[in-house]
Amino acid sequence: MVDCIIIGSGVAGISAALTLKANGKSFLLFGVKELSQKIVRAEKIRNYPGFLGENGEAFASMLQDQLKKEEIEIVCERVSGVYALKEKFAVSTNEGGMYESKTVILASGVEQGKQIDGEKEFLGKGVSYCATCDGFLYKNKKIAVVCLSKTFEHEVEYLSSIADKTYLFPIYKNVEVTGERIEKIVKMPTKIVGEKRVTGLIYPEKGEERRLDVDGVFVLKESLPVDALVSGLETENGHVKINRQCETNLAGLYATGDITGRPYQYAKAVGEGNVAAHSVTEYLQKLKTE
Amino acid sequence: MVDCIIIGSGVAGISAALTLKANGKSFLLFGVKELSQKIVRAEKIRNYPGFLGENGEAFASMLQDQLKKEEIEIVCERVSGVYALKEKFAVSTNEGGMYESKTVILASGVEQGKQIDGEKEFLGKGVSYCATCDGFLYKNKKIAVVCLSKTFEHEVEYLSSIADKTYLFPIYKNVEVTGERIEKIVKMPTKIVGEKRVTGLIYPEKGEERRLDVDGVFVLKESLPVDALVSGLETENGHVKINRQCETNLAGLYATGDITGRPYQYAKAVGEGNVAAHSVTEYLQKLKTE
Repeated sequence: MVDCIIIGSGVAGISAALTLKANGKSFLLFGVKELSQKIVRAEKIRNYPGFLGENGEAFASMLQDQLKKEEIEIVCERVSGVYALKEKFAVSTNEGGMYESKTVILASGVEQGKQIDGEKEFLGKGVSYCATCDGFLYKNKKIAVVCLSKTFEHEVEYLSSIADKTYLFPIYKNVEVTGERIEKIVKMPTKIVGEKRVTGLIYPEKGEERRLDVDGVFVLKESLPVDALVSGLETENGHVKINRQCETNLAGLYATGDITGRPYQYAKAVGEGNVAAHSVTEYLQKLKTE
Repeated sequence: MVDCIIIGSGVAGISAALTLKANGKSFLLFGVKELSQKIVRAEKIRNYPGFLGENGEAFASMLQDQLKKEEIEIVCERVSGVYALKEKFAVSTNEGGMYESKTVILASGVEQGKQIDGEKEFLGKGVSYCATCDGFLYKNKKIAVVCLSKTFEHEVEYLSSIADKTYLFPIYKNVEVTGERIEKIVKMPTKIVGEKRVTGLIYPEKGEERRLDVDGVFVLKESLPVDALVSGLETENGHVKINRQCETNLAGLYATGDITGRPYQYAKAVGEGNVAAHSVTEYLQKLKTE
């Protein structure tokens, strides 16, 4: 069991990792190889102290060098759930991994895109965020896939290999998914409907509402809604509620960066990552002496 | 009148300045040419995201370059008081300057050294932090000067040119002050005594308490006690009390960096500087629309 699991490899997560490393704590940093889309895509950075480069690409490459120098590796799995147990946490991933840690730092950023009406209501009742976790449930059935990033195209293909019919709503450019049983609809769905479980999806076409009958809706996005990730976590206006020590309402669980609210800035995220790592260090000390 | 006055040129103040600049706000940044002793003296920095250099000197030089690039200049005067007026602030300096602003960001770091017993009690009643402000009061009198940094030696000399007798307690190495009317005592005073006003200073010598009769005590240090700087400011365990928006109990007054408490880290200070600048920007917007 590691001391801490950090979820998210944006600047907040990296800041936390660097400080935990300096403090001699063991941890796993979950994220993606390219660190975060938000870093890489930044066109101009001018208010981050100590960074004189121009854009996000240069910043990301600097962070990559720093991670390498400090021998910090990123675990490239997508976290699907965080479970608070007695004085420890279990963290599951889309890839089927299950990890344990004494503490958790949430640094997974703001949820990408608005939620669709009904998305929260039917989560676990036909709505899923994880193709590999729930895909098998839709053998020979009809599904819709709302896909917010090109990076999930292989998951769309996987789903379409199971389901009888896959309606793909791509919310990004340069779609390259093909498949006989895939039908692309370039619209933004407005509502997920059903009774006990999902029965359909509504989307607009030529000023009118169109309805598709489906058995399930997969929403594939980079950052999950916070309350889908951790059950029992207190939120406020869609952000995780924290205090100045980055503590959430769950003991041992901390949150940092965009997930805790505005300003959505590197400097703010870096600061909170640092504070959370210090709070984790103090918490571990307390666990030890108890 | 400027939009904001930032007090302190450590990383917190610089972070705030860079963000205010990016937000198109006018401001004055008070500090010292070398930015801050704390930055320059850092031997090793390993947990500040994006900085791969080794030590504080390299970090400070990077920040200097960034300030230059953004055309931000430091006003090298020492702030002696902040006065909250109606929807604006007046800021006085040891050099005799008086400036006005709509908001203030305190980023002056933690107070250097412990306070001497009686220092707070007799502030303004014989205890002073400012040679140029109060020196003239001690013409032909006896004073003690507790000096915490070599940078104040010219102020010690100035005081000794006014007072009849100056007892210098230097709390640093390589003392180079000389003067016929100066007597050096290499001890740390323990208590300032008096009734309505200061009458003496106590220090230890050979296990015993020694008492000097003096009319005034000057304490020269880089960061003033918070409550000496701003009257009515709410503190907590010696730090300025703020919320997650870096707001203090006084409207329009914000605090960031070490002055708000631990962890005393660059990343934390940078984050708070950024947040404070955003809070200032929102506050100015509100002032405008009221």
